[in-house]
Order: sequence, then structure tokens, then C-alpha cells
Amino acid sequence: MERIEHRACAGGWQDVYRHQSVTLGCAMNFAIYLPPQAEHGPVPVLYWLSGLTCTEQNFITKAGAQRYAAEHGIAIVAPDTSPRGDDVADDAAYDLGKGAGFYLNATQAPWANHYRMYDYVVTELPALIEARFPVSQARALSGHSMGGHGALVLALRNPGRYRSVSAFSPIVAPSQVPWGEKAFNAYLGPDQADWQAWDATALIAHATERLPLLVEQGLGDEFLEKQLRPTLLQTACDAVGHPLQLNLRPDYDHSYYFIASFIGEHVDWHARALHA
Amino acid sequence: MERIEHRACAGGWQDVYRHQSVTLGCAMNFAIYLPPQAEHGPVPVLYWLSGLTCTEQNFITKAGAQRYAAEHGIAIVAPDTSPRGDDVADDAAYDLGKGAGFYLNATQAPWANHYRMYDYVVTELPALIEARFPVSQARALSGHSMGGHGALVLALRNPGRYRSVSAFSPIVAPSQVPWGEKAFNAYLGPDQADWQAWDATALIAHATERLPLLVEQGLGDEFLEKQLRPTLLQTACDAVGHPLQLNLRPDYDHSYYFIASFIGEHVDWHARALHA
Repeated sequence: MERIEHRACAGGWQDVYRHQSVTLGCAMNFAIYLPPQAEHGPVPVLYWLSGLTCTEQNFITKAGAQRYAAEHGIAIVAPDTSPRGDDVADDAAYDLGKGAGFYLNATQAPWANHYRMYDYVVTELPALIEARFPVSQARALSGHSMGGHGALVLALRNPGRYRSVSAFSPIVAPSQVPWGEKAFNAYLGPDQADWQAWDATALIAHATERLPLLVEQGLGDEFLEKQLRPTLLQTACDAVGHPLQLNLRPDYDHSYYFIASFIGEHVDWHARALHA
Repeated sequence: MERIEHRACAGGWQDVYRHQSVTLGCAMNFAIYLPPQAEHGPVPVLYWLSGLTCTEQNFITKAGAQRYAAEHGIAIVAPDTSPRGDDVADDAAYDLGKGAGFYLNATQAPWANHYRMYDYVVTELPALIEARFPVSQARALSGHSMGGHGALVLALRNPGRYRSVSAFSPIVAPSQVPWGEKAFNAYLGPDQADWQAWDATALIAHATERLPLLVEQGLGDEFLEKQLRPTLLQTACDAVGHPLQLNLRPDYDHSYYFIASFIGEHVDWHARALHA
């Protein structure tokens, strides 16, 4: 594991590391923000999952989350969004292949070899983080768009593993929208029964843990009606009594200006659970 | 004037406009953040001047200043760093020509035609902003690196025009460092007497207004000793009793992680002067 960036930020350090991932079979970058409190003992970790086309850089340069993490004594880990490298399968489109891992384990050729972002984010990365950095095993999850989908799915599939979960502009029902249909067809094959394990709206019905969901959605989001459709999640939650706080924000779009505007409130939400 | 970006942010709007500049003889982009208070009456304006290689985008996407501007009811205007377009002279180096206007009026060929960022930022841009947006004539100045130089020089040359000035990692004495020597030779010619009017450290001795300077400098800045040299400004201020608050911050580098870490304190500083 090699540290490739090291920058003082908000009283702590915004670092980027590169390591060889066994799960993904390639070298991966991840970002970690260590707040000043990490110098005095282990701190909890918020994992941030980014959206389509992103790398580990987008969140750390644009969201302005570090000052809130420093206030609350929380580390933030932001992985890349897919396996990387010349021998990793790719597609010319922005919404398939590199930059579009969808936080699942692919079963179909040519993707199955490397596209295992679910195992990477749930298992390999936290094991590495918890072995090598001054952090506790208190974990939280958040993410944006494709990464909001990832945060919700990872939390719903792993009861007890995360103290809290939130999402910005998530793809709440990938089985029912074009981005998800395209990716799931490629990565998982055409049998839609296999898609349900990777769809937050479908998973709600079977959730054994009623972990409250915090979802932030801009009403000026250009992808709202076609790709995101938060009311599908709302309906699924209402049907089984799963707690959901869905904040619909007039005017806000799909960009990091939206994330930066509300990331402080989300870090507060996670801090309450992580320090409880 | 055409609005080319319009994004909800921190309760207000982060916009980008494109207009034809008479001073520069080319089309220019500028960013303007309008806080929620601008819907109810005129708000003061902080002008932000960016550093080498930047456009109007860097500050608005990376500094996280909007939430502080929204708290204090301040608009922020961020212009581009040089004239632009195919018929504007340029140089292959990053520190001359496009992206490197140095906030001066060039006198030498081939630069004199378009490189008049001083007149643009001091006169044309505020006239446009004050005519077309809900802002008052209370103005403040800040900037980073080359833009920190610009902020200090513009304030020192225009007593009474700005309520407050601050700078991050400024080139305080361009006449004495490689970045400034190269640019001033090209834009102003070899006579160093002509450089003094564009050098904050030189201007301090003749300042007729004792406007307090707030300067933020990281001690981990890779350009500190060769290009920035804040102690030259400190010495000049001490010699004449010009008020300077020079904050030297251990570990911080030249990046936007530094700016993002302290921009809130700078907006506070400007807010006190703008709302006084």
C-alpha cells in the first residue's frame, strides 16, 4: 500500500492511497480523510460511494465534507467506482464498465473477472482500513446517484454491519430504470430474478433490520423522473413500515453543488449514530 | 450577457455568465454566487481572484465558500484569470499568457492588445455586476497565489474602493521572484521601475490608506520559499506600520484543500467589513 497524496485539510489529513486489490485483481486508489481526533485514538468511518464516471477524487475535492468530519471526529473513506487498469473490461459508454461498477459482483463475461465492487467495499476495503489506520469498527455508509444505490444496497444486505446509511440522489430501483437495466443486464444477465438482490427498493420488503434511511433528492435533478424515482423507495418503505426520511429539495440538481449544500447535515446524521 | 450555468447551492444560486468584454476585447466567463438574501435586497460583493491555470470554475467547485456567503448574505464574483479566445496571444508555459493574466495592464507586444485584467477587474466587471445584479457597491477582494497578488495590488492601488482585502498564499513581491519576473518582463518590459506599481510589497511604502491585510499562508506550501516569500510583505508592512495579519499554518500546502480549510474565516473577516 502506497500513499500517493498527503494534504493538510481542516485540521486533519486528506490522503490518497494505492493498493493491490485481491478481490478486484487490479491496483486501486482510495481516499481517506483522517480528522485531528485520529491522532489520539480510533475514530469511526463513513464510507462514501461515488457516482457514474467518478474516481476517488470527486468527493474529496468538491463536497467540502472534511470540515464536518473534523468537527465530529469521523474518518471518511472514498473508494474508486470500478476496477481499473488496461486488462479490465470496459465499454465506450459512461454508464457501463470503468467508472460504473454499480457496487455489485458481476456474474457475466467479460465482467465477472474484475467487477466485484460489492465484495471490495463490504469486505476487503474495511479490513484494510481497520488494520492499517487509527479507526474503530463503527461504520457508516453514504453515496451519490450510483453510489447512493450502492450505499442503500450494501446497508440493506448487511444488517448490523453499518450504524447508519444515507444517500444523495440515489438510483433507488435500478431494476426499473434505464441506467440499472443496462448495467444489470450486462453484469448479471437477463434474468431479472437475479437483479432483486441488488435493488434497494426490492430489498426493503425482506429487510430484517429497520435501519433508518436518509435520502436527499433535488427536485431540479435532471435524472429525477427517468433514473432516480425516489417515490418507488418511499412506497416500498411505507408498505412494510421501514423508516425513511426523504428530503425533497426544490431547485437542486444532480451536481456536487447539491451534495456540498447538504453534506453537513448528513455528516451530523451519521455522527449521531457513530458516536451513540 | 448570457447565463450558461444556474445551480441551486447553499440556499442561493451559483451561476456562470458569459459576456463580451470591451476592456479585454474577447468573450469572458465569470461566476457569481447569489446568496438567499439577494432575493430581498442588494448584498455586498466579494471578488475572488484565482491563481495560475485557473478559470472561473476552480473556486466555485472546490473552495466550499458558498455556505459561508449564504450565512453572511454576501455575493461572490469569480472572474477568469486572463483574456481568452483564438486571437488572444498565448505562451506554451502555464505561467504566461492564457490562465496567467497577473491582474495587470500589459504594455508590451504581443500582450498589450488583450491583457488588461486590471482594468477589467477593477472597473468593467464591477460596473456590469452592479448594473445587472441585486448587489450594493460594498466590495471586498480576496484571491489565491497569482490572485492573492492581484487582490493585494488592486486594493493598494485603489484606496476607498474596497472595504476589505485578504489573500491565500499570495505572490507578495512579484518583482523579486521567478513567476513575477517572467510575467513582468513579458507584459511590462525589462524596466523594473515599471514593475513597482504592480508589486504589493513595493506599494505598501506609498499606501495612503491603511487597509488591514489578512494573509493566509501554509508552511507546507511547495512554492513558499521560491515564489511567495510572505516575510517580504511583513517587513514592508512593519517598516511603515501597515496593519497585516499573517497567519502561518503548519503543514498546509498550495492546494484548494488549504483554501477550503480557511475560507470560512476569510468570509467572516470580509463580512465584518462589508456589513459594518
